[in-house]
Amino acid sequence: MDEGVLPSWNDGSIRTAIVDFVTKVTKQGSADFVPPPERIAVFDNDGTLWAEWPLFVQIYFALDRLGELANADPSMRDKQPYKAFLEHDLKTIANFSRKDALLPAMATHAGVTEEDFAATVDRWFASAKHPKLGRAFTDCAYRPQRELLDYLRANGFKTFIVTGGGVDFVRRIAGQLYGVPPEQVVGSSLKAHFETFGGTVTVRKLAEIGSFDDREEKVVNIVLHIGRRPIFAFGNSDGDLAMLRYTLAGEGARLGMLLHHDDAEREFAYDRAFRVSPLGEALDQAAALGIQVVGMKENWKTIF
Amino acid sequence: MDEGVLPSWNDGSIRTAIVDFVTKVTKQGSADFVPPPERIAVFDNDGTLWAEWPLFVQIYFALDRLGELANADPSMRDKQPYKAFLEHDLKTIANFSRKDALLPAMATHAGVTEEDFAATVDRWFASAKHPKLGRAFTDCAYRPQRELLDYLRANGFKTFIVTGGGVDFVRRIAGQLYGVPPEQVVGSSLKAHFETFGGTVTVRKLAEIGSFDDREEKVVNIVLHIGRRPIFAFGNSDGDLAMLRYTLAGEGARLGMLLHHDDAEREFAYDRAFRVSPLGEALDQAAALGIQVVGMKENWKTIF
Repeated sequence: MDEGVLPSWNDGSIRTAIVDFVTKVTKQGSADFVPPPERIAVFDNDGTLWAEWPLFVQIYFALDRLGELANADPSMRDKQPYKAFLEHDLKTIANFSRKDALLPAMATHAGVTEEDFAATVDRWFASAKHPKLGRAFTDCAYRPQRELLDYLRANGFKTFIVTGGGVDFVRRIAGQLYGVPPEQVVGSSLKAHFETFGGTVTVRKLAEIGSFDDREEKVVNIVLHIGRRPIFAFGNSDGDLAMLRYTLAGEGARLGMLLHHDDAEREFAYDRAFRVSPLGEALDQAAALGIQVVGMKENWKTIF
Repeated sequence: MDEGVLPSWNDGSIRTAIVDFVTKVTKQGSADFVPPPERIAVFDNDGTLWAEWPLFVQIYFALDRLGELANADPSMRDKQPYKAFLEHDLKTIANFSRKDALLPAMATHAGVTEEDFAATVDRWFASAKHPKLGRAFTDCAYRPQRELLDYLRANGFKTFIVTGGGVDFVRRIAGQLYGVPPEQVVGSSLKAHFETFGGTVTVRKLAEIGSFDDREEKVVNIVLHIGRRPIFAFGNSDGDLAMLRYTLAGEGARLGMLLHHDDAEREFAYDRAFRVSPLGEALDQAAALGIQVVGMKENWKTIF
């Protein structure tokens, strides 16, 4: 095994499984060889590439931004899921479904042009801090996963993010944090409208969900955006189960992994009880489906 | 000017405009320098990268395939736009709107899994011939455009196809013909459904349009799929005007081009009268918008 790669991963069956898989599919003439263009790897984002507990990063963004929208549309103040955000009622939000938790975040984009939204997100990331981890949100990405993305790319993989989060939000940090360009981020999106005024030609988002990129929809979007079946998938919740199954059901060598947040000391410990992003069904089926469960505590030397 | 590049392009203002643009945006330290990740180039397909007259390639595919569908659903035989296809009434088809001309082609995908559709398309391309050009459809791509795609990529551009054609259809030939991988093809698509049976996990298309990738929708899809404003766009019809405008409206150096089919001897000559894919409005506005009109006759040494 190459000792230089994946330095933040502890030796053990998981690190071995990754290195063996990559060695196998990149070895010319091997029965498991996969040509570089077919080496498609997909990663969930929240809870897989960066911290998602107690609330998704994008939810913190919405908490900071939704007040402005409510000034324009005061009816929001009495309507869930917006009410809980406007009252900063974190306990209620943590018990929302994933969709209710993400809808208000998507709403911050509605009626805004691409360019204005991008500028707002950039400004927010420049100063906002994770309240539990006490660090900039841009420092909440997991070091072992950044190494894994680099390692895969160094071996001819094309790496994609397939996230339930808003695609335009995640694209603003995917390059800096993960080395993934905007066109390789697939996510939830609003419908949008082409618009011209004066010399400006732009796209403005509408207040209507185009795609909520979760569970089975992740697979539909992989087909629509990527157009080939991945050979590697990494997730952390039941929302990633369909994508893992789709990846593993293809022919030839495959690897599917689930991150298990079991490290209360260095990060957080949670799984099926986390309503916004539960890991239950997928954990129960992992062994039968051949999905490798990656315990943070055992497998990661460092987290950030 | 580098004499080795674009050998199938005649010397002249168009070839000079392309080489000057590429030189400018790739020159470190120049005011027009664009870093490689932002060098996004978008190309229409039908009529821009390969022949579209008298009918789109995908329409010939539908002509050959639709009979099977009509056996399952005989009501198609009395219903336009399907009726004209089933009767091989090419004259009526040529007067359809672009949407009516492409709908029956999309219908051949409905109810079919990704894998089965891909196999059907591959089989068809292996033997079908263009009735007017007398050559395999896979030999109907324009040599000058293949050189242009190569030239852009050699200069750090990432090349995308943004087509009104069905995305799954075009993806089957985009690698072989244009060196563009499936994940860099954006096109029209049907809604789809995640499906499992036995050990199979796949996606089956539904008989409902998800996106018809034409005119303003091309720009909405560029934002959704690519997530950045292109700096180079090449089209050939009014369906590409919005995409050209969006490209040219960005800051810094930009290049937008329209192919004009004016070569009846070596290919075909047509523009605004071609109902399925007219070039009228865009031709009229080209000068004012700074779009370069590329006459095939004058600018291309060879076509195929």
